Amino acid sequence: MREGPLDSLIKALAGLPGLGPRSARRIALHLLTNKAKAMNPLINALEQTAENIKICDLCGNLDLVVPCHICRDPKRAKSTLCVVAGVADLWAVERTGAYRDQYHILGGVLSALDGIGPDDLSITALTRRVQQSPPQEIILALSATVDGQATAHYLMDKLESVTEAKITRLAHGVPVGGELDYLDDGTITTALKSRAAL
Amino acid sequence: MREGPLDSLIKALAGLPGLGPRSARRIALHLLTNKAKAMNPLINALEQTAENIKICDLCGNLDLVVPCHICRDPKRAKSTLCVVAGVADLWAVERTGAYRDQYHILGGVLSALDGIGPDDLSITALTRRVQQSPPQEIILALSATVDGQATAHYLMDKLESVTEAKITRLAHGVPVGGELDYLDDGTITTALKSRAAL
Repeated sequence: MREGPLDSLIKALAGLPGLGPRSARRIALHLLTNKAKAMNPLINALEQTAENIKICDLCGNLDLVVPCHICRDPKRAKSTLCVVAGVADLWAVERTGAYRDQYHILGGVLSALDGIGPDDLSITALTRRVQQSPPQEIILALSATVDGQATAHYLMDKLESVTEAKITRLAHGVPVGGELDYLDDGTITTALKSRAAL
Repeated sequence: MREGPLDSLIKALAGLPGLGPRSARRIALHLLTNKAKAMNPLINALEQTAENIKICDLCGNLDLVVPCHICRDPKRAKSTLCVVAGVADLWAVERTGAYRDQYHILGGVLSALDGIGPDDLSITALTRRVQQSPPQEIILALSATVDGQATAHYLMDKLESVTEAKITRLAHGVPVGGELDYLDDGTITTALKSRAAL
């Protein structure tokens, strides 16, 4: 009752990832004191997005159009397929500008702890897609976590039986700009094992 | 163009205090993947708030009603008036439960750097209010910053000429739970000077 009428707004904001009650209160006040510049643009953007965003039925990307602008881009080759866990990962790869072919979004990674099995991910759609328009290479761009790597191995097994494509994973090693002193032993071990000629 | 239709939402979110592009992307994705549980409640709360929130013309608080629920509460004594810089500070004092009288919101503090002078704050309204219904005590609950303290001294001068009320400020000292080792010299000096019998 203390904050009264703002409670529902603060509660909705505090439930967002990375925000808590304190930052939610700060944001709510900022919105209220900047109605024209902050509140109304945010409401408009939210409404526009809520109404118009669709899920691409080919790759699983979020876009205004189906198929999404990546799948319908004629300039993108179909020879390589990059398998990612989620939309955030697709964005991360796109931001690099180093990859300009096709994507497939799994919708997560296998996780015994969270109870996510193969049927919860878009794996059947992936094998079907790979059979219908066979790529030359499939890049499993999954996180270097236990769950990510388990998912990669599972996909590897599934895909090998339905495609001739080369199946690759992202390189492991020292992050660019990373200091050895702050890296964990596992990363340094992997980087040593995969060392390359200068 | 990379994130396409979500750009305006991410931009609106990234402009909020404490958020940047990375956290904004994370929140946008969370909203899109949890439409019913996160997106729609947030839109509703924002719209409700934007439409209904008013500024109390007595104290400057934000509420659904004018005068606000604090000013119209008959259980609150009128003998003490707590002057705060903003609504967030009023909330902070209310949360303690240690104060249950009246408030006056200045709308900021004097700041030469930010070009905020006495006319930008609700100081005339404060002196008028103090003259119309004289309190017994005025607590200047302003931050212990240079600007906050300068504002307190300015208000002290202004108020002394129009009221007989006792004018007080919050105590300075070691925060509860604070370790001496991590405190700045100024706080320890103030705490030493204002030391009290055990």
